[in-house]
Amino acid sequence: MTIAFLDLRDKLREFSRARDWDQFHTPRNLATALAVEAAELLEHFQWLRDEESTSLQPEVREAVSLEAADVLLYLVRLADKLDLDLIALAQRKIEINAEKYPVALARGNAKKYTDL
Amino acid sequence: MTIAFLDLRDKLREFSRARDWDQFHTPRNLATALAVEAAELLEHFQWLRDEESTSLQPEVREAVSLEAADVLLYLVRLADKLDLDLIALAQRKIEINAEKYPVALARGNAKKYTDL
Amino acid sequence: MTIAFLDLRDKLREFSRARDWDQFHTPRNLATALAVEAAELLEHFQWLRDEESTSLQPEVREAVSLEAADVLLYLVRLADKLDLDLIALAQRKIEINAEKYPVALARGNAKKYTDL
Amino acid sequence: MTIAFLDLRDKLREFSRARDWDQFHTPRNLATALAVEAAELLEHFQWLRDEESTSLQPEVREAVSLEAADVLLYLVRLADKLDLDLIALAQRKIEINAEKYPVALARGNAKKYTDL
Repeated sequence: MTIAFLDLRDKLREFSRARDWDQFHTPRNLATALAVEAAELLEHFQWLRDEESTSLQPEVREAVSLEAADVLLYLVRLADKLDLDLIALAQRKIEINAEKYPVALARGNAKKYTDL
Repeated sequence: MTIAFLDLRDKLREFSRARDWDQFHTPRNLATALAVEAAELLEHFQWLRDEESTSLQPEVREAVSLEAADVLLYLVRLADKLDLDLIALAQRKIEINAEKYPVALARGNAKKYTDL
Repeated sequence: MTIAFLDLRDKLREFSRARDWDQFHTPRNLATALAVEAAELLEHFQWLRDEESTSLQPEVREAVSLEAADVLLYLVRLADKLDLDLIALAQRKIEINAEKYPVALARGNAKKYTDL
Repeated sequence: MTIAFLDLRDKLREFSRARDWDQFHTPRNLATALAVEAAELLEHFQWLRDEESTSLQPEVREAVSLEAADVLLYLVRLADKLDLDLIALAQRKIEINAEKYPVALARGNAKKYTDL
């Protein structure tokens, strides 16, 4: 899986331009749509027990896959509107997290860094 | 911006392995964390008026950037656990959306496809 | 626990009036704040296993309690701005759900009504 | 609008008992359902501009009303499972907020209390 975020970004630009949707794509609206899609993804897990969530039924996995795609698409679109480099930010955030969660303190527990 | 989703995936695997966090990273828990992060991103926009959301204050833009990174990281991690190819899914979802929202019907309005 | 939703509503009106916050309390902004608070409540559960969620640690239960209060407060405020009678709506929704989920079909399974 | 939270609570208990759904109603699952419903409510606002959100179309208002009812029902159910007195908590939270947001500092601005 090599990729082109740029390719996704450009396809979404063209998609929106063709439909005259840029008027709706304010950062705020896109952030709202992103949160709504993430909740729709989560909905598929809401009544599952832990062990059921690790071996999804095929139709659930398919539905989750398409919701995950929606999350990515809105995230790419939001990043485009705010001129963010998502990959660089993600790399940077991993480094920040490594400092917040030192291996020695965080090992085997799920506490928030403020409670370590 | 070319990328390596694979690189992010591998760094997250190593991050989690070093902290013995795979026990917490069920698909369900990751989907929950994803939705929580998306809401935290949205929180920065909650009291803004439309026009304010298009020219964010620098400190808000920075906060939003790091929340966007969190969303991407949890999405990559969830995709890893479910063995999903996010980029291929996103490409496929754009095609699905193009059929759901034909240019002639969707042009200039934000109705859901079920209401077109 | 008998109540006064009206009392909560009036206190929130006065709270907002004193701070000149009605300008921020559009239905959309309140709906956003409501979703953000619900996600903050959920955050406290995100790494718990099923059995841990049924016997919360005291400090988690306290935190969840205050988030639940926030959810109720934004819900009451949103209902006020949209002139909704929440209790009547909730009663009506229980009746709708009873038709969507007949006992004979729904008993012991958590499927969505569209899949029954 | 006087109310009976207790009446709603009891109807939901009976609803769940008749369908053998208590097995699914862990606090965690209910918190997830609550967040999902709040996001569904928000979805109706996601492409609206500020001024459109204050005068909803009748069918949007109706849809929002039923989502608001769902939020309340899951909140009441969660409170029941955690043995929380929602009204007392809401009263207490208003007092906490009054201290966090003193009139003199908060008047006319929407900053978070940590930024006042």
